[in-house]
Amino acid sequence: MQAVDIIIKKRDKQELTREEIEFFIDGYTRGEITDYQASAWAMAVLLNGMTSRETTDLTLAMAHSGEILDLSNVVPIAVDKHSTGGVGDKTTLVVEPSVAACGLPVGKMSGRGLGFSGGTLDKMESIPGYRTDLSRDEFLAQLKTLGLVLTGQSADLAPADGKLYALRDVTGTVQSIPLIASSIMSKKIAAGAQAIVLDVKVGEGAFMQTLAEGRALAELMVSIAGLANRKAVALLSDMNQPLGFAVGNALEVKEAIQTLHGGGPADFREHCLTVAGHMLALAGMAPDQPAGQLKAQQALDSGKAWEKFKTLVKAQGGDVGYITEPERLPLAPLVEDVPAPRSGYLSGINARVVGETAVALGGGRIRKGDPIDHAVGLVVRYKVGDWVEAGKPLFTIHANRTVDVERARDLVLDAHSFSDDPVAALPLFYGVVK
Amino acid sequence: MQAVDIIIKKRDKQELTREEIEFFIDGYTRGEITDYQASAWAMAVLLNGMTSRETTDLTLAMAHSGEILDLSNVVPIAVDKHSTGGVGDKTTLVVEPSVAACGLPVGKMSGRGLGFSGGTLDKMESIPGYRTDLSRDEFLAQLKTLGLVLTGQSADLAPADGKLYALRDVTGTVQSIPLIASSIMSKKIAAGAQAIVLDVKVGEGAFMQTLAEGRALAELMVSIAGLANRKAVALLSDMNQPLGFAVGNALEVKEAIQTLHGGGPADFREHCLTVAGHMLALAGMAPDQPAGQLKAQQALDSGKAWEKFKTLVKAQGGDVGYITEPERLPLAPLVEDVPAPRSGYLSGINARVVGETAVALGGGRIRKGDPIDHAVGLVVRYKVGDWVEAGKPLFTIHANRTVDVERARDLVLDAHSFSDDPVAALPLFYGVVK
Repeated sequence: MQAVDIIIKKRDKQELTREEIEFFIDGYTRGEITDYQASAWAMAVLLNGMTSRETTDLTLAMAHSGEILDLSNVVPIAVDKHSTGGVGDKTTLVVEPSVAACGLPVGKMSGRGLGFSGGTLDKMESIPGYRTDLSRDEFLAQLKTLGLVLTGQSADLAPADGKLYALRDVTGTVQSIPLIASSIMSKKIAAGAQAIVLDVKVGEGAFMQTLAEGRALAELMVSIAGLANRKAVALLSDMNQPLGFAVGNALEVKEAIQTLHGGGPADFREHCLTVAGHMLALAGMAPDQPAGQLKAQQALDSGKAWEKFKTLVKAQGGDVGYITEPERLPLAPLVEDVPAPRSGYLSGINARVVGETAVALGGGRIRKGDPIDHAVGLVVRYKVGDWVEAGKPLFTIHANRTVDVERARDLVLDAHSFSDDPVAALPLFYGVVK
Repeated sequence: MQAVDIIIKKRDKQELTREEIEFFIDGYTRGEITDYQASAWAMAVLLNGMTSRETTDLTLAMAHSGEILDLSNVVPIAVDKHSTGGVGDKTTLVVEPSVAACGLPVGKMSGRGLGFSGGTLDKMESIPGYRTDLSRDEFLAQLKTLGLVLTGQSADLAPADGKLYALRDVTGTVQSIPLIASSIMSKKIAAGAQAIVLDVKVGEGAFMQTLAEGRALAELMVSIAGLANRKAVALLSDMNQPLGFAVGNALEVKEAIQTLHGGGPADFREHCLTVAGHMLALAGMAPDQPAGQLKAQQALDSGKAWEKFKTLVKAQGGDVGYITEPERLPLAPLVEDVPAPRSGYLSGINARVVGETAVALGGGRIRKGDPIDHAVGLVVRYKVGDWVEAGKPLFTIHANRTVDVERARDLVLDAHSFSDDPVAALPLFYGVVK
């Protein structure tokens, strides 16, 4: 078997066998197949596609390129969630304590933000002392004793995916649904997940811009899960406007804390409860999603989820004083309200522009490894469909420099659009794929 | 401008600008754009295509990646020929002395064989002492004084093409008509050609298997020449059976010598005269192709072409005694005639099988740099359409070992097919693209 023949086969729109995919991924992981062969292959995959069967074989080949965590001695069933990334998406901070408070242990390995899309680790690191670098053994021990972990990748999971993703990033081969699906699913499978709730974001502030693309990705990931003997549910959720109001690391932690106290933005709370309900149902801890959602709601409203969050922060070295008194969390020197330029119904808030502006303020990164500022960001005040009164605060900028405030003001004002006629609210979800 | 954006643009089926193509080729030549970016781009080009304008810009960018030979002080007009490669294609050995004998100076840089396709340099090196490594200055001096040179590439011509071709070879991106056309034309333009006769081989023993592919390549190359202010004519010639009878280096030199003496296989002689006629017409040394062809025929029949070939061999250090007495050329220890297994009309000789068998005998190379044996090869006896009598010699094997003879016998017998009914001869040419 030769790498070039596998590339040619995919170039010629033929289906690769499991043996060919394993040979390619194994050779690439070990450095015997070169980057230039892998990138030509990735471009052929992007342009010619792969079947569900090929994508599942690719997923499993990448998952098996390193260690597969075995959580069977630690939890009854390993349930995970994954969001494809969006603007203001602090869901994990509320969902994980909620389901843990319902008795479902969850150990989550999260990622960092890149581009307009934020990352859970960056948000949690707003809390002084909070460690996101737990070792494999610390991860397993905390999952067993506390039933809740939220950290970075604690082992060399799916190294083939890491290597291939870095290559795709610089060769124009990111936007391939089979490659995105196999990348996500290989990491989840390597992290030991037996059941996964996939939150596929769709819209301007997401990687999948259209519902058709989002549905295709969702269906493919659910199909992979089935073929790989895992359970999965995928939600198609809106990302045309920010989720909740806060965009920026410490600002989002504050909003998550409000939500854990039973408050928070209605859309964000509903989103979290929906995801949590699916997780509890998938795990068999509720007969169905609505029953799971009700349990999660009770965990939130009773304060049990909040208590669980506090134990999490404490267990991972965070200073609990910063979350019990969230006004102590990092705050930017300049905080400026921007008034609405007119009255009207809000007809749109471009989530991508809001996300990119938060990055430009210093709250995100353009390249991996860039430092970030936890304090800066934006807080919008309205959702699409809301009536806005001219002169009232439309959004708030948290920044370090006046020049940043001015640039952000122009960009985010432009990101808001208004209508004289009533505008329908955006749906939270477009569908569920099982 | 960033390499990844240029890859993405081609991935998304958009037309690249001249600036983008120059940026990419320039960056790749200097090593600033990596192999893995170039291979992803090449796959996108292969699958999404390029316009004539893009291909011309790519050709010129690659031609200008190194020195462009300026022959204007050496010859009145620099005319070149190029064959896309076939089996038994020793055309250059007859065409170049013929046109030179007509007073048209030609300095040709040829290549080596790879796979089933032979190379002119390997053939000429059958002649002991013949040098194919002339320096740039030797090339220019001999072209000026003798009006005839036949050597390897004597300068760092089109280095981007050399680098990209090596990459395409191992990434499944060879079979792209725009990439093939720009590779050929960039080398010809860098070698100083102002007018080019392109011999595009079509059929089983060629890289272009179908007439449609061959015509597309021919039309694209002629279009590039026009856009780059060069003259070109492309012939679509048959390569379903070997050209002439001999396949193998010294065997082909002997057949070329017979042809230079006014003999040789009728199809090969006709092929050479047709190409020569086009070269003389393109150079303005004949009013049209038929007149050019007549001049070339007179040069062959008068012995002037043969005299020119002798002076060429002598000028480049070859021992003329080996061509005046060609029986002294390398001869394999085993020479075996294989009788026809039946009587009938010859309905096919698979040129690719014949070429691959000659390689297996040691007469060609599978990888660049493999050593070759100049003596071995095959001589077929019939052309498609000929009547063959059972038991009469069908072809002759020239080999080193009995085991090679046996394997070659089976393969080449299988490559011949017969019919009881009369079979039409194959055309020499399928058309001309101007």
